[in-house]
Amino acid sequence: MIGFIQQNTGREWALKPVKVGVLGLGTVGGGTVNVLKRNAAEIARRAGRDIIITHASARDLSRERICSTEGIILTADPLILINDPEIDIIVELIGGDVFAKELVLKAIANNKHVVTANKALIALHGNEIFAKASEKGVIVAFEAAVAGGIPIIKAIREGLSGNQIQWLAGIINGTGNFILTEMRDKGRDFSDALAEAQALGYAEADPSFDVEGIDVGHKLTILASIAFGIPLQFDKVFMEGITRITPIDVEYAEQLGYRIKHLGIARKTPEGIELRVHPTLIPDRRLIANVDGVMNAVLVKGDAVGATLYYGAGAGADATASAVVADVIDVVRALTSDPENRVPHLAFQAAFLADIPVLSSDRFKTSYYLRLNAEDRPGVLADVTRILAAHQISIEAIIQKEPLENETAVPIIMLTHTTLEKEMNAAIAEIEALLTVAGKVNRIRLETLG
Amino acid sequence: MIGFIQQNTGREWALKPVKVGVLGLGTVGGGTVNVLKRNAAEIARRAGRDIIITHASARDLSRERICSTEGIILTADPLILINDPEIDIIVELIGGDVFAKELVLKAIANNKHVVTANKALIALHGNEIFAKASEKGVIVAFEAAVAGGIPIIKAIREGLSGNQIQWLAGIINGTGNFILTEMRDKGRDFSDALAEAQALGYAEADPSFDVEGIDVGHKLTILASIAFGIPLQFDKVFMEGITRITPIDVEYAEQLGYRIKHLGIARKTPEGIELRVHPTLIPDRRLIANVDGVMNAVLVKGDAVGATLYYGAGAGADATASAVVADVIDVVRALTSDPENRVPHLAFQAAFLADIPVLSSDRFKTSYYLRLNAEDRPGVLADVTRILAAHQISIEAIIQKEPLENETAVPIIMLTHTTLEKEMNAAIAEIEALLTVAGKVNRIRLETLG
Repeated sequence: MIGFIQQNTGREWALKPVKVGVLGLGTVGGGTVNVLKRNAAEIARRAGRDIIITHASARDLSRERICSTEGIILTADPLILINDPEIDIIVELIGGDVFAKELVLKAIANNKHVVTANKALIALHGNEIFAKASEKGVIVAFEAAVAGGIPIIKAIREGLSGNQIQWLAGIINGTGNFILTEMRDKGRDFSDALAEAQALGYAEADPSFDVEGIDVGHKLTILASIAFGIPLQFDKVFMEGITRITPIDVEYAEQLGYRIKHLGIARKTPEGIELRVHPTLIPDRRLIANVDGVMNAVLVKGDAVGATLYYGAGAGADATASAVVADVIDVVRALTSDPENRVPHLAFQAAFLADIPVLSSDRFKTSYYLRLNAEDRPGVLADVTRILAAHQISIEAIIQKEPLENETAVPIIMLTHTTLEKEMNAAIAEIEALLTVAGKVNRIRLETLG
Repeated sequence: MIGFIQQNTGREWALKPVKVGVLGLGTVGGGTVNVLKRNAAEIARRAGRDIIITHASARDLSRERICSTEGIILTADPLILINDPEIDIIVELIGGDVFAKELVLKAIANNKHVVTANKALIALHGNEIFAKASEKGVIVAFEAAVAGGIPIIKAIREGLSGNQIQWLAGIINGTGNFILTEMRDKGRDFSDALAEAQALGYAEADPSFDVEGIDVGHKLTILASIAFGIPLQFDKVFMEGITRITPIDVEYAEQLGYRIKHLGIARKTPEGIELRVHPTLIPDRRLIANVDGVMNAVLVKGDAVGATLYYGAGAGADATASAVVADVIDVVRALTSDPENRVPHLAFQAAFLADIPVLSSDRFKTSYYLRLNAEDRPGVLADVTRILAAHQISIEAIIQKEPLENETAVPIIMLTHTTLEKEMNAAIAEIEALLTVAGKVNRIRLETLG
């Protein structure tokens, strides 16, 4: 037993306990129950009152759990929680964007605050959900929806609130980062590394959300909204997955001093906002280039603060629960606050979300890594560089590699300076049409993140 | 001009403008004026009301400023601001712990909220200041006091509030980190690197606060308090500077796969809390080992979230202003909140700060890098290892180096496993007493931060 500085034997909290109902007792739900129980005393010392899970719902009540449910009323019907007038906060951890949306909207209609870890729900339906929540004067908190336990929503929305955010770039899918790390460390190809991720339980049987960039797109949608004060616009995010990354590109990138990471990038430009998810070469000396395995990190550039980075576990029962519980405590603080003077859901007052255009991909400005296979004879390079020059694409470096085993074509690697994607698309089409160039040009975007 | 999603031409903010008075117009004060002016529109879109600096005080009104003071009433007398009933928030940026304390206490007595960047003030007088502030129901915000623009106070106090924090370790003095980075990158010795830091304006003419660990100690005091829920106890922090680090230790550390960083470390153990500032070998594969130059980073380990890292600029006008302005906006939110239900100043309710003992240095448990100069003859290593074994110190690695130029003694480098510092002190005394060992044993603590 530790002593406290002031004597308070028998002291009652000035505020009554807060009652929480948890929808879903899977990985994150179980973790949330565990963390709230294990750290109950510490949490009460912070919050100034007890926070108690009184009810939880789960589809299959007979399933084995990672948490003890002692003292918690279990039900298969989430509406029992949502309709219980004693419950102050509903924690939605069932995932998916259809049934979860229905439940969250009902909880809001019943004047309940909501905490969710559901990135698809927020990215796809957040505008509607937050509008309803504001009408009712309740909070929908979603720290756990992006980058697991890293308090990145809070950092951007509150910690950097004095800044104009210029851009952000995140490794926000642990499965994808694990796969790319395996490819680099062990020279594996994509499908081997994916199989390993599946064997370890990191990737789902259908891994497309992770490896095609959809999950990153959901999270990027949320980050961009709170960074720039724009509505959630998942439908405008450009998404390219990591399925076409080959070990040879990973290897060449490494030789050139770069790592390939699957980044979600949001950048404010004078023309509009870039929202893009794609594999990206980044200089290996950057901290974020050294974020490996299933770990997540988000790099945020503000006009005042400069570059800041936030790193931690992006998934897992307890790490995600850490964010859920922090949100619950935040909501507890807000129970007695003025709804007109809270941190807005999307960081900016709803009436002042800006109507800034989201750029189509042909308007992106970025650098590129290009790899092509050319016949080993004079004039090929001249043809390629002439095409690039005609499109105002300037070259940072050209490297000619030895032919791969059993190949006669010579791999040519180029790094370009920043250029307009539209010009690059046109140039690549012309290069691929050259008779001396075999097959496709492999193009990976490159960002210095300086 | 950007458009907004909802039409709001001529809309007045529901809440009246907040008036801010700034004490001190030096680097951080000037930066704060610049950031609040430059980002006024963005900040109002977030805060839901205008935030205006109406008054500022400066000792010497004739001095040239880094900011425009247009529209701000200037005075040499800070009491004019503190006594102005129109001013809602006092921003204290004069530094030092005597006059600043007097002014902050007067502002609190006048029911004003306070934002400060003053780490010495908070570390030395925070307990008293927060008690007075709580009596008056006002907030004293201090995000800018630690790690400049990195929102580390908010991350620990709110973002990780569901966790039991187990330990944290920070590079929280940019000058010291610049010096150690110079020593590593350029093989410079300490005094050369310090001179360079002074020439670049990073280090003061009297650099002792930076290089002796006092500044780190102030910041560590604050971080430990909000991490563990203990009172501020600067007087119990163990502090060792970087002045005795030599290029040869930096070089050997590098060869062994380590970097030397000046860390502030706070760790909760079953026996009590370790609060220590000292040069530390850390594995070079850790992200924090790669935080170079004047940059800051704090690694925080929570029981739920695992390891998280926060990185950014630890100083500079705009970066520090970023934290000051974020605090101002937080205070604006809290203007209409229930004082009984706010985030407590030190993260935990004042009545529930814990009386956990802070350990004296002989009770620290850590690993060590040891360097000693021995005669090159049989039996020396046997003597040294016998002494270590007698003190239950187990050795991870021993390396014998070539004698340095013009030397006959052989440098012996050892890395140990975790041991009690008391045992290490005794062992070192015995090793230094060996006739075959010349001079002092150079000892640098080592942490794996795993």
